[in-house]
Amino acid sequence: MDYKRDVIITEVCPRDGFQSVKEWIPTGTKVEIINRLIDCGYRQIEVTSFVHPKAIPQLQDADEVLKRIKRSKNVKLRALVPNVRGLERAIAAGVDKVKLMLSASDSHSLSNANCTTEQALERFTPLIELAKEKKMDVSGSISVAFGCPFEGEVPIERLTMICERYESFGVTEVSLADTTGMANPAKIKNTVRRLKESFPDFTFSLHLHNTRGMAFANAVAGYEEGIIHFDSSAGGLGGCPYAPGASGNIASEDLIHGFEEMGIRTNVSIDKVLDAAKYIQQLLPHAVDSFLLKAGKCSDLSAKPKGQKKVGV
Amino acid sequence: MDYKRDVIITEVCPRDGFQSVKEWIPTGTKVEIINRLIDCGYRQIEVTSFVHPKAIPQLQDADEVLKRIKRSKNVKLRALVPNVRGLERAIAAGVDKVKLMLSASDSHSLSNANCTTEQALERFTPLIELAKEKKMDVSGSISVAFGCPFEGEVPIERLTMICERYESFGVTEVSLADTTGMANPAKIKNTVRRLKESFPDFTFSLHLHNTRGMAFANAVAGYEEGIIHFDSSAGGLGGCPYAPGASGNIASEDLIHGFEEMGIRTNVSIDKVLDAAKYIQQLLPHAVDSFLLKAGKCSDLSAKPKGQKKVGV
Repeated sequence: MDYKRDVIITEVCPRDGFQSVKEWIPTGTKVEIINRLIDCGYRQIEVTSFVHPKAIPQLQDADEVLKRIKRSKNVKLRALVPNVRGLERAIAAGVDKVKLMLSASDSHSLSNANCTTEQALERFTPLIELAKEKKMDVSGSISVAFGCPFEGEVPIERLTMICERYESFGVTEVSLADTTGMANPAKIKNTVRRLKESFPDFTFSLHLHNTRGMAFANAVAGYEEGIIHFDSSAGGLGGCPYAPGASGNIASEDLIHGFEEMGIRTNVSIDKVLDAAKYIQQLLPHAVDSFLLKAGKCSDLSAKPKGQKKVGV
Repeated sequence: MDYKRDVIITEVCPRDGFQSVKEWIPTGTKVEIINRLIDCGYRQIEVTSFVHPKAIPQLQDADEVLKRIKRSKNVKLRALVPNVRGLERAIAAGVDKVKLMLSASDSHSLSNANCTTEQALERFTPLIELAKEKKMDVSGSISVAFGCPFEGEVPIERLTMICERYESFGVTEVSLADTTGMANPAKIKNTVRRLKESFPDFTFSLHLHNTRGMAFANAVAGYEEGIIHFDSSAGGLGGCPYAPGASGNIASEDLIHGFEEMGIRTNVSIDKVLDAAKYIQQLLPHAVDSFLLKAGKCSDLSAKPKGQKKVGV
């Protein structure tokens, strides 16, 4: 195994991270955080979700945030859209790409979006039509792709069926989300291999949560199966609603640092991401969850001991 | 890659975990924790370190602990010994195996044991002689094998030199310790492959810390290179002295659960380990650090939602 292919990280803190924070993050703060993330070298940032304000009050200022951030031609802005109204807002806000979201299991879909997976797919039709008309790029995602907190195992046939439907919509960029951290490296490898065989023209990405400590191992497993697109969240913002207090999104600084340590280039500045994460930590100390914020980079060496302390062993 | 070989986990909480806890753990509590760990199915437990009481006051009751724990013929008890006096105590206490410890880098060795790596190796000679005379099994270990917090990169030649010296002592069971969490999967694979090529008769094990979130990925990388012996600590007890507050030893429950989820058998009861970890958590809530204590197992499913909550997306 060599580790020569670069990876492409999409920063999702402004969407998946912010939406999990209970305390109101002022619009100006959101803008400042996003601006700092835009400066890090990411090629894509998931900036918000155009959902109904009652569903996710934290993101009610999505339109205003999009107006005020500092755009860069090097950074594509992606937004989540749950329905036609959301898509209209995303188009008006001038994002570069929208992401559709559904759950691999009916139980999670009902819990999260009050509809079955099939109903979610049917609801995509008018969105796709409008997006095509407006020449808006569309990507897809599959939540709980590696395990459902209600049903457990998700059969590969569910993922295949959903990918076929995405394909029928002309959507071939699909994020596989381990929403509640139920994946493991063997499952990642098997699933990715089978999906890539069935859908050779798709671009799959991995959206990994560290709920059970396996996120980085899962990223490496995905990479070893040819995945080069990954989501992560600066400061590790974004928890797990089914296990309060448990870890959520893999922190961008942990993923980027880990890959870079392996010799895999991310083309994102780890120092700038760490600075952004520290800024987020100052504002939202209880929301951050990252290893690097505690331990620093491997290259942050300690000063050599001068006096040779006698420890008596 | 198939994942068919079983792994063998050595529980190190009573040594590496306890020694990092500042508050005094009463002897009876230590005995109770070790007894619970003995019941989990481990084949080996690192029960203590026979060091000078001034060096590690927490382990000053090592002899008493060994007298009071409930022995099982299925579980080998290993103890760390830094010198002849420690070995004599270990022999008197009736452990099954002793472990020698040194650091791969001079800086870490000077900081930790007040001697260079070469001096540490020289001090092993009388220990080896006494152990042979008393027919005591001896294993070795190499701290900071994958990176030194003072010097950074540890050249493979250092590890090779140390393994040659261990071999000259007749010690062919060697634990490679990522003491401060500086390893990554690529480094693990390269290092393990080269050491196994140079020392085909050795049994190498991995002692991994999760300081930068890569411990489980490193375990999988090691497994994929043929390593089947791993250390871990129930409750994740054991920190990183160079980064206060950072994660330390990979938690036994996280390692065992992760392997089992991959279909790799550990022959340890994850439920009993979790029970032991919860017991430790009750006694030492600030010392535990494990994902499973927060999130539970993948198989701990949530109740399916009955009312289909309208979330408005």
